[in-house]
Amino acid sequence: MVQFAKGHGTRNDFVLLTDPDDREPLDVEQVRHLTDRRGGIGGDGVLRAVRGGHVPGWDGDPDAWFMDYRNADGSIAEMCGNGVRVFARYLVEEGLVPAGTTRIPIGTRAGLRVADLLPDGRVRVWMGRPEASGEPVRVTLGERSWPAAAVDVGNPHAVVLLDSAAQVAELDLTRAPAWEPASMFPAGVNVEFIAPAGEGRVTMRVHERGVGETESCGTGTVAAATAAATAAGRNEGTWTVTVPGGEVEVELAGGEAWLTGPAAIVARGVLEWPGGPGRPDGGAT
Amino acid sequence: MVQFAKGHGTRNDFVLLTDPDDREPLDVEQVRHLTDRRGGIGGDGVLRAVRGGHVPGWDGDPDAWFMDYRNADGSIAEMCGNGVRVFARYLVEEGLVPAGTTRIPIGTRAGLRVADLLPDGRVRVWMGRPEASGEPVRVTLGERSWPAAAVDVGNPHAVVLLDSAAQVAELDLTRAPAWEPASMFPAGVNVEFIAPAGEGRVTMRVHERGVGETESCGTGTVAAATAAATAAGRNEGTWTVTVPGGEVEVELAGGEAWLTGPAAIVARGVLEWPGGPGRPDGGAT
Repeated sequence: MVQFAKGHGTRNDFVLLTDPDDREPLDVEQVRHLTDRRGGIGGDGVLRAVRGGHVPGWDGDPDAWFMDYRNADGSIAEMCGNGVRVFARYLVEEGLVPAGTTRIPIGTRAGLRVADLLPDGRVRVWMGRPEASGEPVRVTLGERSWPAAAVDVGNPHAVVLLDSAAQVAELDLTRAPAWEPASMFPAGVNVEFIAPAGEGRVTMRVHERGVGETESCGTGTVAAATAAATAAGRNEGTWTVTVPGGEVEVELAGGEAWLTGPAAIVARGVLEWPGGPGRPDGGAT
Repeated sequence: MVQFAKGHGTRNDFVLLTDPDDREPLDVEQVRHLTDRRGGIGGDGVLRAVRGGHVPGWDGDPDAWFMDYRNADGSIAEMCGNGVRVFARYLVEEGLVPAGTTRIPIGTRAGLRVADLLPDGRVRVWMGRPEASGEPVRVTLGERSWPAAAVDVGNPHAVVLLDSAAQVAELDLTRAPAWEPASMFPAGVNVEFIAPAGEGRVTMRVHERGVGETESCGTGTVAAATAAATAAGRNEGTWTVTVPGGEVEVELAGGEAWLTGPAAIVARGVLEWPGGPGRPDGGAT
């Protein structure tokens, strides 16, 4: 049995667990069961709260909470912009930080992040220094292709700026985009299609590498804001990015980025691992 | 806040609630939130346990448990073969029937069903009298078409018998099948593609009307067994039906059918309705 919570930020959803002393590291099968939307709980990934001192290689505050993030397939992931917000909300709601805390340092495999809990319920997270390479890249989807901006937010993005939200809406993202030169993103790339949606606002859809279209991608919104800012000729300021799963804000200042968005814990419970004593199995797992 | 359980039978999954006195009927929005796989818990439907005496139109035992079944979109559904099994398992695990109970009468909108809890953990449910119409029907998928058997199991089915499991496996069920004569199923039809898989065994994939391909369909397995039995020239006996989500057994005897399969409750918990006091919202809902 394991206690869990389920939460989401702009419909990027996670199963959350607490294991301060890293007593029960999750194996691949356990992660897959937790994220199994039919046979388990369901989520894009698992976020496990472990004290930094128990994480090999962590040289920061041993009492800081470390976000042990795993993708739904069980693989290890470095960081997740939406995940950090949900993780911060979880730490507050579970009482894992002192009451009244409004700023939480969070260890991740990409280094320390700081989450600010805003009075309106949203969470603001420092996202590092997005780098627009300026190198020309071309994205192809079906029979159409466009120039794109390459932006690195710790992971690689290619952002296509279209003229209108209607053009973004009509794209068929069931197909994976291709890009040229192919050598530019040897490990694949996340592709964002964006369009202006009023002063300081863009609308965005995203095709995540290895996943397909998703309702939200935290680093993708930062890449989108960076590309929009470059196109608008101003590198500072706040951009509101609308994704299918909701709306976030990206602040750009001094070459750094902060991502602010919603985060909610929607349920808490207890899950029984399959195959436990006397446990009937619902079918194939 | 609401207490829930999550369970599945051959990966047909449900959110389960108990409300003996029908004090909190669910509106469409609540059902959609519970079954929302990202913003809520997630499931193919909701099963709410209500005492029969509180159900308008129920003229059976007022103390019998009634399965108030709702589809994920909030609409009302009559019956669900996999759902009844999971519902029976839930009643046992929640202590809603006396300890040691092995036979549970369950009210449904299609009438009374009886669930038997087998010693091996599976649940056996009477599924009524499947009716093979014998009328010729032809199913088309893409550029191919086949003769099919029309079988009514309370809901309509068209069963296509292929030669091998490999032929079933290679079908592209992302497209919806069509049928002729169109007048035969004015409200749509569930289409099963089956193939022999050894003595008394068939393998099956299903395209459910209004849904698409699913990993399991209880009434579909009964239709598949009925069609396989007719093709084999024997109307009595037991058929093992393998679906993507697992394996079930269908017994045919005296024109009646019983469906036996796995059922598991995998988690229990508490869900907070969105928009409650002080509740942050994770994004678009």
